[in-house]
Amino acid sequence: MTEITHDEWYPRLAARAQGGPSDLSAILALASAGGDLVDFSGGFPDPSLYDTQLLGETASKAIASKPEVALQYAPNYGIASLREVLRGQVTRTQGVTPGADDLIVTSGGVDAITLVSKSMLDHGDAVLVEAPSYLGAFSVFRSHDGVCFSMRNDEDGLIPASIEEAYEQARAAGHPPKVVYVIPDFQNPSGLRLSLERRREVVEIARRLGLLVLEDVAYRDLAFDGSYIDSLYALGPDVTVQMGTFSKTFTPGTRMGWACGPATVIDAMAQAKTNTDQCAGALGQTILESYIAEGHYAASLPVLRGAYAARCAGLMDALTDGLGERASWTRPGGGFFTWLEIPGVDSKQLAASAVEEGVAFVPGGPFFADSRPNTNIRLSFSRTTVDRMGEGIARLRRSIERLDG
Amino acid sequence: MTEITHDEWYPRLAARAQGGPSDLSAILALASAGGDLVDFSGGFPDPSLYDTQLLGETASKAIASKPEVALQYAPNYGIASLREVLRGQVTRTQGVTPGADDLIVTSGGVDAITLVSKSMLDHGDAVLVEAPSYLGAFSVFRSHDGVCFSMRNDEDGLIPASIEEAYEQARAAGHPPKVVYVIPDFQNPSGLRLSLERRREVVEIARRLGLLVLEDVAYRDLAFDGSYIDSLYALGPDVTVQMGTFSKTFTPGTRMGWACGPATVIDAMAQAKTNTDQCAGALGQTILESYIAEGHYAASLPVLRGAYAARCAGLMDALTDGLGERASWTRPGGGFFTWLEIPGVDSKQLAASAVEEGVAFVPGGPFFADSRPNTNIRLSFSRTTVDRMGEGIARLRRSIERLDG
Repeated sequence: MTEITHDEWYPRLAARAQGGPSDLSAILALASAGGDLVDFSGGFPDPSLYDTQLLGETASKAIASKPEVALQYAPNYGIASLREVLRGQVTRTQGVTPGADDLIVTSGGVDAITLVSKSMLDHGDAVLVEAPSYLGAFSVFRSHDGVCFSMRNDEDGLIPASIEEAYEQARAAGHPPKVVYVIPDFQNPSGLRLSLERRREVVEIARRLGLLVLEDVAYRDLAFDGSYIDSLYALGPDVTVQMGTFSKTFTPGTRMGWACGPATVIDAMAQAKTNTDQCAGALGQTILESYIAEGHYAASLPVLRGAYAARCAGLMDALTDGLGERASWTRPGGGFFTWLEIPGVDSKQLAASAVEEGVAFVPGGPFFADSRPNTNIRLSFSRTTVDRMGEGIARLRRSIERLDG
Repeated sequence: MTEITHDEWYPRLAARAQGGPSDLSAILALASAGGDLVDFSGGFPDPSLYDTQLLGETASKAIASKPEVALQYAPNYGIASLREVLRGQVTRTQGVTPGADDLIVTSGGVDAITLVSKSMLDHGDAVLVEAPSYLGAFSVFRSHDGVCFSMRNDEDGLIPASIEEAYEQARAAGHPPKVVYVIPDFQNPSGLRLSLERRREVVEIARRLGLLVLEDVAYRDLAFDGSYIDSLYALGPDVTVQMGTFSKTFTPGTRMGWACGPATVIDAMAQAKTNTDQCAGALGQTILESYIAEGHYAASLPVLRGAYAARCAGLMDALTDGLGERASWTRPGGGFFTWLEIPGVDSKQLAASAVEEGVAFVPGGPFFADSRPNTNIRLSFSRTTVDRMGEGIARLRRSIERLDG
């Protein structure tokens, strides 16, 4: 019988799978291109900042001392002792203690967004998102047939009043709003941190409208000065699922994250975990538990903050020197990103031009749920050493000049 | 403002999340109950069979020698060098070589089913499943709004002609059939291996009907005599996505699996990976690659086969001694499971009775997509040592006698 060709499979794919590669894949591809590239693209940590000897010892110790845990399936909620450790972390850094059933271990941040989507979204339900916001989250919501509606952001981050505007817009379009997705700390891509006052408003509005706040705290531990502002979860644990990842402050290699929130939603997420990938990896959980419990996590944060602060400062200097009159940008107090506005430049065209000059970044378009044409780009300073910042921005300036003609 | 109570969240969950805990969660809970239980429940490997010293060394070596790979994000397809190693494994054990774009690394088997579901299933599409089959797979298909239709199995496994029957039944009910899910080797839960002749028929029928075969080879490497029968993928690489897991033969702790198949489908799965959990864990990938490439995986298989064969033989003896006239069961040539038929006994009632007697197993109902009342139970012999088999079956006999009254 005639074999089926690859091309014949395409129309048989699910509708959601016929859109081609996601924007995030394109970024991952860019970042792995290598060569002489100055890479401002992905939100990647720098493994050269890790104590590999310590991590290696922690891993082999986990395997030797608890093989029946580390090398076995884990419960869908995560290993009980790690959940205790993570509840302790939330208590110490946020002043609120999740209940015993209020926290789940996830396989990183994207997995947490998947579990919330599976738990909350029926076909066509609306998610309200910042503009700009993390493009990977849009992709997860959409893969669960959710529809993203943009709120409005200004130079101080999310404008709380725009939650209700987007809420009404979604309802008017027949998409029941379920979730409002917010990254309050050193936001991806803007680098901005939301004020306490705006956080309070976000929680109040969500509670009134019956929305679940999905708070993404990926960069919360990375304030350069070690400071914290009350989390949305601390302000409204009844309406917030907070999700965090250890990919920025520990390693993406173990796929570790967590989520805490109302037990009813966390329980639904645990059931979704079972039918998504069964459980988070027990080896990674065992390593992470030991790493936190022995104080290594807390001890590593000042080192990471110092390194990323220095890179951020280096980039700020390079931008002032190289693009001071051609662009404007945010001045982050933590995290991995700055967000540039380059008047009169189509950012997608610029990204193509830049690759030829040997500098990579992510153009602004995909960070808007409505993919608007725009003049923004996101620069990540997390993997670029200070001595390379000047060269990277010089290449960026040349890329802009090529377009300016 | 009044806080929102946990109960108020329930009706706001997605419809799919309002069903309560899955059958698989209940099993995982059973298995972790501990105590003096003789545990025939989960399809769990036995970590005491692992060389923990070797695994510990492999892990610390991976971290020390390749931190920029092992401790970083991985590509959505998986790390290129591991993909090469896995393609080599398929070539060696199946006599067919996946193309360069035909293989993806997954976070275990359930993740692979998730990625196929996201790639292939639109709302209401049908998946044809064996009766009985792996209940965890049903749960994944349903969480992507797929509808399961049962084919028919007999004492030799799946009856190929029943594919077309289920196909017509699904179409008549308005559910377009997309995927046929088959576990040909030492099937979960029956323990049976499908004959070469029936495999050929499965591939031919799927090709004619335009169905994607999803071949689950979780137990393929665990024939007690080390034998292999041609895989469905080898017989029909144009119509088959084969998915495997390292949770049975390596460790579930790293969440490692793979899938190979038509590049168009694998590419869709890679995009789905990005919006499910971004990538499989790089640390686990690096450990696994080293473990296979250095020959440890191949060297471990005879040890595992010998251990599980002895446990299977011990269970068969215990069943003959303890239940010879009260039940019948399959005699597996590999894998982790035997499937019992106990005439006149409601298996769900029996499971409840058995827990009080101190023996755990999974009742047959959830292994049928239509959850029919039945007189079957699945016994896993993978984690029970030979000297405990007699006691376990004595407890099972007493449980039956309680119901027989």
